[in-house]
Amino acid sequence: MNDLEIRPATAADIPAIVAMLAADSVAAGRETPDDLAPYYAAWERVAADANQHLTVATRGGRVVGTLQLSVIPGLSRTGTTRAIVEAVRVHADERGHGLGTVLMDWAVERAGELGCSLVQLTSDRSRTDAHRFYEKLGFTGSHIGFKKQL
Amino acid sequence: MNDLEIRPATAADIPAIVAMLAADSVAAGRETPDDLAPYYAAWERVAADANQHLTVATRGGRVVGTLQLSVIPGLSRTGTTRAIVEAVRVHADERGHGLGTVLMDWAVERAGELGCSLVQLTSDRSRTDAHRFYEKLGFTGSHIGFKKQL
Repeated sequence: MNDLEIRPATAADIPAIVAMLAADSVAAGRETPDDLAPYYAAWERVAADANQHLTVATRGGRVVGTLQLSVIPGLSRTGTTRAIVEAVRVHADERGHGLGTVLMDWAVERAGELGCSLVQLTSDRSRTDAHRFYEKLGFTGSHIGFKKQL
Repeated sequence: MNDLEIRPATAADIPAIVAMLAADSVAAGRETPDDLAPYYAAWERVAADANQHLTVATRGGRVVGTLQLSVIPGLSRTGTTRAIVEAVRVHADERGHGLGTVLMDWAVERAGELGCSLVQLTSDRSRTDAHRFYEKLGFTGSHIGFKKQL
């Protein structure tokens, strides 16, 4: 893991992040990497919210991974603040070398630093490799994730 | 649905909300309704975050339902802002009279007003009645929800 850095994303990282979002087989049809305008608009909303931690991993200065950590205070579970991890992606060139584990371990540690005592995420039912990966990291697939497009 | 009002929660609603959280069979062991201090502390965090919408339904001034709507901006899905619904509860006295549907319909509409184009939630695998309920409301159980306690 030489030269690997994990740091907050900046506007300059948006093209590389979007390229990774679009390179994913499940999500490809939902992204428009040839039109970055909606992503820059979304970046403004993310950057304005202190509870959103859009993060990149870089190697030798090149963006090779990303995830978004969201901190959500709430009453349930005796007032637990939870972290939600979304949009985890590792560049194709980096797969199979443990970067996903490094990124997720970072996310769990950072969540604790941010006052969270629960980390949660949802993963498409079709991503069976990802499910094994999350289970190996100590996550339990105890819930069904429901979505409704507006 | 006479006298029904849906409104933002206030500190005065905390005991009633916690009573509903604790009355739930799946979640009961996680709550401490006899010690409200952690919930009031959590309420301060929720109230300080403009993207958290802790909500109650009241009938004749009595709290009979609750949910928390969280607004999460992000890059994925072409810069979609998503809403997450958590801690949906309906008082035992009100069950089977459609209050859950009214509350969820309200949440979906409010999510749209808040700029969200996706609403998501997770539900414990054991809550099969709830799963049918969410499917009837147009949600798709397309994901596995993973959690890790810190």
